[in-house]
Amino acid sequence: MSKAIGIVTTEFAEFDGELQLESGRLLGSLRLAYETYGVLNPERSNTILVCHAWTGDAHAAGKHSADDRKGGWWDDMIGPGKVLDTDRYFVICSNVIGSCKGSTGPTSINPRTGKPYNLTFPVLMVRDMVRAQKLLLDRLAIPTLRCVIGGSMGAMQAIEWGIHYPQMVQSIVPIAGTGRTSPMSIALNALARQAVFNDPMWKKGNYKPEHPPADGLALARAVGHISFLSDVSMRMKFNRKFSARDGLFDFFGQYEIERYLEYNGKNFVERFDTNSFLYLAKALDLYDVAWNFDSREEAFSQLTCPSLWFAFTSDWLYVPADTEECVTILQKLGKSVEYHLIDSDYGHDSFLVEPEKFTHHIVSFLDRLES
Amino acid sequence: MSKAIGIVTTEFAEFDGELQLESGRLLGSLRLAYETYGVLNPERSNTILVCHAWTGDAHAAGKHSADDRKGGWWDDMIGPGKVLDTDRYFVICSNVIGSCKGSTGPTSINPRTGKPYNLTFPVLMVRDMVRAQKLLLDRLAIPTLRCVIGGSMGAMQAIEWGIHYPQMVQSIVPIAGTGRTSPMSIALNALARQAVFNDPMWKKGNYKPEHPPADGLALARAVGHISFLSDVSMRMKFNRKFSARDGLFDFFGQYEIERYLEYNGKNFVERFDTNSFLYLAKALDLYDVAWNFDSREEAFSQLTCPSLWFAFTSDWLYVPADTEECVTILQKLGKSVEYHLIDSDYGHDSFLVEPEKFTHHIVSFLDRLES
Repeated sequence: MSKAIGIVTTEFAEFDGELQLESGRLLGSLRLAYETYGVLNPERSNTILVCHAWTGDAHAAGKHSADDRKGGWWDDMIGPGKVLDTDRYFVICSNVIGSCKGSTGPTSINPRTGKPYNLTFPVLMVRDMVRAQKLLLDRLAIPTLRCVIGGSMGAMQAIEWGIHYPQMVQSIVPIAGTGRTSPMSIALNALARQAVFNDPMWKKGNYKPEHPPADGLALARAVGHISFLSDVSMRMKFNRKFSARDGLFDFFGQYEIERYLEYNGKNFVERFDTNSFLYLAKALDLYDVAWNFDSREEAFSQLTCPSLWFAFTSDWLYVPADTEECVTILQKLGKSVEYHLIDSDYGHDSFLVEPEKFTHHIVSFLDRLES
Repeated sequence: MSKAIGIVTTEFAEFDGELQLESGRLLGSLRLAYETYGVLNPERSNTILVCHAWTGDAHAAGKHSADDRKGGWWDDMIGPGKVLDTDRYFVICSNVIGSCKGSTGPTSINPRTGKPYNLTFPVLMVRDMVRAQKLLLDRLAIPTLRCVIGGSMGAMQAIEWGIHYPQMVQSIVPIAGTGRTSPMSIALNALARQAVFNDPMWKKGNYKPEHPPADGLALARAVGHISFLSDVSMRMKFNRKFSARDGLFDFFGQYEIERYLEYNGKNFVERFDTNSFLYLAKALDLYDVAWNFDSREEAFSQLTCPSLWFAFTSDWLYVPADTEECVTILQKLGKSVEYHLIDSDYGHDSFLVEPEKFTHHIVSFLDRLES
């Protein structure tokens, strides 16, 4: 039961055709990075699709080599005997298009020019990401999804899956998501964007990969980081502690919270591409489940499967009220919907920090689907 | 009763001596900009000191010329028959040191070098600002203050006045303040700082006034602006409205909230100095009423006058809980304290946007002081 997932390898699927995007533009050819955990059953009926957040990747569980100190980003959740039990389920996670973690994105070569897309890459919506994932599932000849689950941007993908592929999706679990992003979250992304635009190294997106707009991206990440935390979590972790090596009256002296943001911002530059960060931020801003429907009610009326929703009390980026609006609409439509508001102090990050507070609901939800 | 304050002039007081700062450094000579409204009574007992916030100035009420379209920043509050009734009170507002609105700050000439201070200006605390104001009141031969009142950074000054000059201060009214800034507010200021530091035009503070780090300061201001608003106020004002002249799928297309932040950020560059902005941000971060006391309890035990406190439900910068901690300490100490939590959706800016929700409490508080 509790043996680990072990060593996994990221795989890649190539698609020659072009994907029609919500913007009307075409994107292709496409490459999608993905990982799988567990075994597809003979009936091909036990797949769970895990959708990652903004800066996530396909590496959701296991290790890439025995030397890896850490497992995938949701390793606590995925594995034998875990919440997404790989003894029972075949779990897939694929990197979204627009990202820089193996799937086609702004760093990819534009086949029409032979050069990286950079800002010629099309603006994407979350719906486009899901449409690309559908190509992957078709390629893998997976006809049904037992569940589509994800947090934050992953929750948006789960919602889109449920609405646009109702014949294929048997349940969705949106965690710390929203039916449409708020002006506050757009405003924070605007700060992050401007931080990059202000960096002369950005060069309107035509920086060389080895010379990214590091200062701008680090600051942009710090904006995001603040929005993932909460007033209370910052008090618990940092409060007003001043950096021991700085003088309180030094102009450049830092509180611990400042040092933490700076450190994490700089680290982020090592692992993420700036243009990808911006394109995914744009997709988040554009997210509205009602896009191309007359209303959210009409959008949610497409959903036929049971859904399980989680929001977190201290999440001020995607506030519980926004999840609750979605849940209320589904209830009014007579859909099978379960919702839990989880009391946690860790802000938007709560779903990663305190999984023990809510994952038992996921286990029983999945069990009930089988019965 | 309801005649306007009319035309006012900013006055300046010069002080040859040096002010001993909390950092141990000396600052001098000093110049303080101030305005007064109403008439000092023969007993010299009717003065109300108004303290301004971060980017405020001495021009609290009236107009500088008949052509001015707007009055001072608290013109709604100050004047004949208004909350701070200039038919009864002699109202003073002085620009804080560290600012760029007429009082000594980083743009001033350092008398020891003959050049602008820039980053050689000492790091200040709010307590230093108050100490400088005390010099002004002594110069004006004002022995007592009927009330010290202010919002945000102005609230901090009111608190410091009450604690450090108890023999002189007869009441304080801290509005939307805090006894010490939170790590969240420090983190937001850290973003603003970094936005400036990243701007090559900043030149470690040695920019020419005519070539300020405009992009960095505009972004820094946008950070602040977001923190003054609230999730709800942004929904009310902007929601997800997209700029009519932009394409939804343009990479540089903007939501209305983005355009608003950009517009206000750029405007701000015209009216405020970057280094002053940074020094005042630092003073906000360093603000802790317990500084150089053993505890907040010891600090507040110095206060002898009645105090009237306001917090606002949607203020996520200086959250009501922080004001309530101060109030609770004062209550435990047996002090005369009155507190109102005002239900407003306008975030930290509520005190400027919806004065009608709380100013009647100020009127009756001031009336009771006289009886």
